[in-house]
Amino acid sequence: ARTGVPEAVLCAAKSAAQIGFIVGEARARGTRLLLTRLEPEAFAALDGETRYSLDYDPLSRSAVLGGDVPTEAGAVAIVAAGTSDLPVAREAARTLAFSGHEALLIADVGVAGLWRLMARIEEICACRVVIAVAGMEGALFSVLGGLVSAPVIAVPSSVGYGVAEGGRAALHSALASCAPGVVTVNIDNGFGAACAAIKMLGIPRG
Amino acid sequence: ARTGVPEAVLCAAKSAAQIGFIVGEARARGTRLLLTRLEPEAFAALDGETRYSLDYDPLSRSAVLGGDVPTEAGAVAIVAAGTSDLPVAREAARTLAFSGHEALLIADVGVAGLWRLMARIEEICACRVVIAVAGMEGALFSVLGGLVSAPVIAVPSSVGYGVAEGGRAALHSALASCAPGVVTVNIDNGFGAACAAIKMLGIPRG
Amino acid sequence: ARTGVPEAVLCAAKSAAQIGFIVGEARARGTRLLLTRLEPEAFAALDGETRYSLDYDPLSRSAVLGGDVPTEAGAVAIVAAGTSDLPVAREAARTLAFSGHEALLIADVGVAGLWRLMARIEEICACRVVIAVAGMEGALFSVLGGLVSAPVIAVPSSVGYGVAEGGRAALHSALASCAPGVVTVNIDNGFGAACAAIKMLGIPRG
Amino acid sequence: ARTGVPEAVLCAAKSAAQIGFIVGEARARGTRLLLTRLEPEAFAALDGETRYSLDYDPLSRSAVLGGDVPTEAGAVAIVAAGTSDLPVAREAARTLAFSGHEALLIADVGVAGLWRLMARIEEICACRVVIAVAGMEGALFSVLGGLVSAPVIAVPSSVGYGVAEGGRAALHSALASCAPGVVTVNIDNGFGAACAAIKMLGIPRG
Amino acid sequence: ARTGVPEAVLCAAKSAAQIGFIVGEARARGTRLLLTRLEPEAFAALDGETRYSLDYDPLSRSAVLGGDVPTEAGAVAIVAAGTSDLPVAREAARTLAFSGHEALLIADVGVAGLWRLMARIEEICACRVVIAVAGMEGALFSVLGGLVSAPVIAVPSSVGYGVAEGGRAALHSALASCAPGVVTVNIDNGFGAACAAIKMLGIPRG
Amino acid sequence: ARTGVPEAVLCAAKSAAQIGFIVGEARARGTRLLLTRLEPEAFAALDGETRYSLDYDPLSRSAVLGGDVPTEAGAVAIVAAGTSDLPVAREAARTLAFSGHEALLIADVGVAGLWRLMARIEEICACRVVIAVAGMEGALFSVLGGLVSAPVIAVPSSVGYGVAEGGRAALHSALASCAPGVVTVNIDNGFGAACAAIKMLGIPRG
Amino acid sequence: ARTGVPEAVLCAAKSAAQIGFIVGEARARGTRLLLTRLEPEAFAALDGETRYSLDYDPLSRSAVLGGDVPTEAGAVAIVAAGTSDLPVAREAARTLAFSGHEALLIADVGVAGLWRLMARIEEICACRVVIAVAGMEGALFSVLGGLVSAPVIAVPSSVGYGVAEGGRAALHSALASCAPGVVTVNIDNGFGAACAAIKMLGIPRG
Amino acid sequence: ARTGVPEAVLCAAKSAAQIGFIVGEARARGTRLLLTRLEPEAFAALDGETRYSLDYDPLSRSAVLGGDVPTEAGAVAIVAAGTSDLPVAREAARTLAFSGHEALLIADVGVAGLWRLMARIEEICACRVVIAVAGMEGALFSVLGGLVSAPVIAVPSSVGYGVAEGGRAALHSALASCAPGVVTVNIDNGFGAACAAIKMLGIPRG
Ligand SMILES: Nc1ncnc2c1ncn2[C@@H]1O[C@H](COP(=O)(O)O)[C@@H](O)[C@H]1O
Ligand SMILES: Nc1ncnc2c1ncn2[C@@H]1O[C@H](COP(=O)(O)O)[C@@H](O)[C@H]1O
Ligand SMILES: Nc1ncnc2c1ncn2[C@@H]1O[C@H](COP(=O)(O)O)[C@@H](O)[C@H]1O
Ligand SMILES: Nc1ncnc2c1ncn2[C@@H]1O[C@H](COP(=O)(O)O)[C@@H](O)[C@H]1O
Ligand SMILES: [Mg+2]
Ligand SMILES: [Mg+2]
Ligand SMILES: [Mg+2]
Ligand SMILES: [Mg+2]
Ligand SMILES: [Mg+2]
Ligand SMILES: [Mg+2]
Ligand SMILES: [Mg+2]
Ligand SMILES: [Mg+2]
Repeated sequence: ARTGVPEAVLCAAKSAAQIGFIVGEARARGTRLLLTRLEPEAFAALDGETRYSLDYDPLSRSAVLGGDVPTEAGAVAIVAAGTSDLPVAREAARTLAFSGHEALLIADVGVAGLWRLMARIEEICACRVVIAVAGMEGALFSVLGGLVSAPVIAVPSSVGYGVAEGGRAALHSALASCAPGVVTVNIDNGFGAACAAIKMLGIPRG
Repeated sequence: ARTGVPEAVLCAAKSAAQIGFIVGEARARGTRLLLTRLEPEAFAALDGETRYSLDYDPLSRSAVLGGDVPTEAGAVAIVAAGTSDLPVAREAARTLAFSGHEALLIADVGVAGLWRLMARIEEICACRVVIAVAGMEGALFSVLGGLVSAPVIAVPSSVGYGVAEGGRAALHSALASCAPGVVTVNIDNGFGAACAAIKMLGIPRG
Repeated sequence: ARTGVPEAVLCAAKSAAQIGFIVGEARARGTRLLLTRLEPEAFAALDGETRYSLDYDPLSRSAVLGGDVPTEAGAVAIVAAGTSDLPVAREAARTLAFSGHEALLIADVGVAGLWRLMARIEEICACRVVIAVAGMEGALFSVLGGLVSAPVIAVPSSVGYGVAEGGRAALHSALASCAPGVVTVNIDNGFGAACAAIKMLGIPRG
Repeated sequence: ARTGVPEAVLCAAKSAAQIGFIVGEARARGTRLLLTRLEPEAFAALDGETRYSLDYDPLSRSAVLGGDVPTEAGAVAIVAAGTSDLPVAREAARTLAFSGHEALLIADVGVAGLWRLMARIEEICACRVVIAVAGMEGALFSVLGGLVSAPVIAVPSSVGYGVAEGGRAALHSALASCAPGVVTVNIDNGFGAACAAIKMLGIPRG
Repeated sequence: ARTGVPEAVLCAAKSAAQIGFIVGEARARGTRLLLTRLEPEAFAALDGETRYSLDYDPLSRSAVLGGDVPTEAGAVAIVAAGTSDLPVAREAARTLAFSGHEALLIADVGVAGLWRLMARIEEICACRVVIAVAGMEGALFSVLGGLVSAPVIAVPSSVGYGVAEGGRAALHSALASCAPGVVTVNIDNGFGAACAAIKMLGIPRG
Repeated sequence: ARTGVPEAVLCAAKSAAQIGFIVGEARARGTRLLLTRLEPEAFAALDGETRYSLDYDPLSRSAVLGGDVPTEAGAVAIVAAGTSDLPVAREAARTLAFSGHEALLIADVGVAGLWRLMARIEEICACRVVIAVAGMEGALFSVLGGLVSAPVIAVPSSVGYGVAEGGRAALHSALASCAPGVVTVNIDNGFGAACAAIKMLGIPRG
Repeated sequence: ARTGVPEAVLCAAKSAAQIGFIVGEARARGTRLLLTRLEPEAFAALDGETRYSLDYDPLSRSAVLGGDVPTEAGAVAIVAAGTSDLPVAREAARTLAFSGHEALLIADVGVAGLWRLMARIEEICACRVVIAVAGMEGALFSVLGGLVSAPVIAVPSSVGYGVAEGGRAALHSALASCAPGVVTVNIDNGFGAACAAIKMLGIPRG
Repeated sequence: ARTGVPEAVLCAAKSAAQIGFIVGEARARGTRLLLTRLEPEAFAALDGETRYSLDYDPLSRSAVLGGDVPTEAGAVAIVAAGTSDLPVAREAARTLAFSGHEALLIADVGVAGLWRLMARIEEICACRVVIAVAGMEGALFSVLGGLVSAPVIAVPSSVGYGVAEGGRAALHSALASCAPGVVTVNIDNGFGAACAAIKMLGIPRG
């Protein structure tokens, strides 16, 4: 797009034919493309040529057309509360990689085991932007927001049951966080968090 | 009541005449009484004799009929995230005192300033039951639940604005807490938390 | 965990490979493990060795690694309103058994047939902690809370339809209960209720 | 109205002038009239003549034009969980009296003190229709519904705080009641419950 | 049950084995039984003997054990707004038939085609109790409530999409109806409506 | 505005100084102006000159600067279910009058008294656009939508209590209406409904 | 229907037999018919004769009995924010075609790429009525409402995830639009929007 | 705080005595302080010395202790949709000024009048971070997010009525925005948005 963020195709509600057409056009134009929310079944339903042209990752349900770009490490930390948050965390990582940023990914550091988070906190503090992914009650956002100077982008995940089902509890924890400076994106929107991080890293010098 | 918890009168929807009558009856019977949710204006509207017979505390909006009982300290810690949570925390403390327990009250230790909580954590761990009061995003419940072996009773407070208005965000954080063993009472229900703590302290030996 | 409650793995959002790996590690370390929310299909998808090492219970969708420990009976009553609440009730029972407590399980005593509950009330009153499981309108929580001196831990279940679908109606009944001292955990969280009961039973002498 | 229920005026959103006009017209026509939701301040704002013509009851915020009719007792029981539910209970009683039924009014029998309800249950069972009023968690509806053969009309009241604020928790308990045959009206709608009772009492013989 | 309503088994969350056991016991005792929310697949999964003993109706997903009783017609009208509401309407009809009442069933008379309802209104007015079933916006409840003198029991159905999905819009229309005397049961609860009708028809003479 | 609808100022969140300034500027430019949601107290707080220049109507809380324009009658019918809906109905009428349309205003024709609506239906059918205002359960929208060929614009009003409080029940009835072709605006938005009617009347010939 | 909008059958909750019967009757009467919400699987389940008689469109899940009518172009523009909104947009187009209007369909002009919308705005402004379809945050409704003089009918679509799941976010954007004169129909209700457009085009001359 | 954002006191739920004490301590320590959500009445209730020491701004309800710091202009644009959003916009501006940033404030550029926004878009694009404040339907967030390369921080405001009351509609528009890279803070949280902007401006060079 015109705003510095990656050109992406949200595949959730598109047919195999529509996706094949979009990828074909991009290949003809020679442009790279990121595809998100492409379920394994949807990927399998694509025609062979399209499938062959894509680098598909089933965990994050994302695909890349046009190959790798050289990436630079260390700018962004992605911190996930639990193993169940990894699909969302990885969607963010893939979006960043598509734009040349190799993120530091740290998982299973939820606040119910605070010592696990504290063991990694210096690595996190060394990054320029922090993306935090958490479902359930989302307490991670406030703890991180109070410990690091970098901007913290919260991604509530839909992991949870009962009152946490669907991610609203985690979302409200992010929004109501008593740690000033925490910002939020939609539930499960790892792509959007990465886009915001890319915009932040692109802020020109003052 | 017959279950070991204090006999209490919820004054919120009662008239001055009704409250005066209930207090009068208790005085006649010579029984002690705890009154909750008695707003300063409602207290002021009581007749002089009733008012005179009560030990009223405007911060917690509670009143005691029948004077003090000897209290024992150290069994219960009440941990409040912010100064704004003090009314609810104090309602719990007054209920406990009514039943002979002097609680340890620790305030302004929200998780956005984690070091403030860690500075007091040993005192908290020395108690037999912990009551945690927090509004906004209620991240305190999970952090405490992961650090102490005692039962943690969460009291979500209605302190907050936007998505936190009314206390639902904090309540859902308590319920969805990833720290196992955290239990919850209704929003702003310091009285109920204290009753639960009293029941827990009264568990007979196995 | 460090707080006296059982080390448990929430399997809902984990792949067969991830679960196999966690179980393998625990076996290598020689530690016991409780697995929750492991659906029959997910259990069937585990590799043979992992499956063989686990004691799996399809009703509660839980599995235990590391065999039985001697259990003691009589400390905890689990009271379920209906037959449909048994999966949740049994998750609580299995968690307690994992920690050495054999619970008294009483089912089908919903308040629409009050006489059935009253026929069992003395057995319930003899226990030190009571876990109550109910869906629909959750009236059981208040009736029990008014009758027993032990702490009552309410577990709202997601059993119900219309306004009760998903368990919110029962949850709100637990939270708004007019019986003081009732505490609550998340909808369907039998595991959490058992953890809280274990913490309560572990309260040191005053 | 044409359906056998009392002609009533809902005053909540009407000006003093509008109410005065409606009452004036009814007096001119010589018809009796029931006015509901007429707050004390709104009553005080009416012109003297209108005020003088009305029998006003501030507790239920209702007024009657046209005087008493002979009433018959014993057909309807109104059971209120707490003192705070009395305004709603009394709105029902006044509507019934307007139509010639003197209700049996029993208050403060919430289920947290089950023995208080059981002490009155025979009186209640002797009535032909039962109206139950309760706020908070509304457990009373299910207990009554399981004990009496008469139709039970639940009136959820807006008494409560936290998740019970506004009456939704009690309403959902009425709707999801596991006691078959309980029916419900809107929150705080004592008038509607009485109208339904009147319709039920008017069912012609089969 | 002890309150005059039919003994019924809610099958939604029960296994084939549990249902078979309950039916077997009833047969042994020689008691009749009504089974509700028994999906066709669940019925098919029952053992042959159980299946053979039941009179199953797939439209209403209900089954009867113990055969017919003589029914009397004309006491209850069941009015359904659309064809899609027929499963719920029929659940009410089957429950009534189980208790000896043959209902008058009128369908496809939603208020968007008011003339269709008006063509049947006299038949409806001749009944002693009216059950109205409607989804979408539930306008039928108010129109009927204003036209008939009999008690109107509204059954909101979950038929609808968008804001009507799940039945809340129709439920709120029933509760907020400006036609006094309309009462409501839970969404899709045809069984409960029939139980209430049975209780009403059983009101003893004054 | 550039789209043919009246230039209006929403006064709800503006200070007296801000409103005075806006009106002053319009007078200087010689343009007419409509002010909405101007509460009586807010009007009283305006400076004398501003107040004097405005034609204020307290019922609809609207004011007009710049005097009357010739109006033509008969194009639009505004149908209000109850007297309490008149403020919203009148906001629509004032907006239409500002643009040269004198609406036909019919009130107190809610569907609980269907005969009152039927008595006026021919007048309504003679109009080119119909605006319907209703609170509570909003059944009026569907009944009207099924009877008239003109477009029906529903304005849900916030009149109501319990589940109808704030207007969501009426809004959902409008949206889920089974009468095809009913369109809706926001709760209490008489201004918006009138703007839509003006746009419809301005549709050029095909 | 009697109000000028097409006779349509909502197939979502009807069986193949019911649909076959309705189509058969229409064929016998020789009337045309529009069928909506007929899923491909439901269409496939119809008997051969019925299927053969219908013109089925799987994208919009609609079918037409009775063939084409001559259509006239240019009266209505249907503007869809994304490709995912096409099924709803096409349901509107099919309904219009059934009534003789060939709509101008413009897709993939969401406001995140404002230049794409601006490139087509003159074509849109040339139409007499505009239907706008958008999911996610529904910003398109306000932008269009501020740019065109024609009535804008917003159709919120259920496309989206997180807080946008189910279409409520887009619906509320339509209702709260600051562009006066925007009207709304239910989520995904392309049929209803087309009916409203037909009613608007049918407004008689003033 | 330790994370680079201003030390601020949320005054909403604090007494005059508590605020006086906090300000007194800061003065003794010689530290600067920002006070937020200090209503005019609450400010007036402070003791004279405290009041005198503060630079109070009633529009944003904020106060500064410790005087001005040199500010630099041009880094941050604050874009407000309407005049009613100015209090929130100004809270952001005051927080930025407290930290040395003079923001560019642009108001009344809501998307219903797109040309007003386009007239200022170049000024906005010249800034390094953009804060957007909007209530009602919040369409501004997506339009801005699609036009500028800088990070866009959305602040939903509680301005609005009906479905927009309280700010949820605008919040959901921000979260579901189809413009990638938009991030959000809580409703009315101008302070939090400014803190996030400060963190972004403080990102060290890569
Ligand atoms: N996972 C995602 N979540 C949110 N927005 C996305 C996602 N993937 C792509 N987008 C955005 O959605 C729009 C693509 O929509 P479409 O034109 O339907 O493919 C573009 O603005 C993308 O930047
Ligand atoms: N059924 C359950 N409900 C809630 N929490 C659980 C459950 N089972 C395990 N847990 C907790 O969830 C965490 C395990 O998460 P994980 O590390 O993703 O396996 C631990 O803190 C467990 O104590
Ligand atoms: N408290 C009440 N709750 C619900 N409906 C009422 C109440 N009081 C009167 N009504 C009904 O509301 C309508 C009166 O409305 P109105 O014509 O505005 O006075 C009549 O149908 C009354 O039967
Ligand atoms: N009562 C109202 N409801 C909805 N929108 C209104 C209302 N009154 C004025 N408006 C619109 O709100 C905008 C005025 O906002 P403002 O610039 O803040 O006065 C204009 O687009 C008006 O057309
Ligand atoms: Mg973990
Ligand atoms: Mg603090
Ligand atoms: Mg049972
Ligand atoms: Mg009481
Ligand atoms: Mg029909
Ligand atoms: Mg009326
Ligand atoms: Mg697109
Ligand atoms: Mg403006």
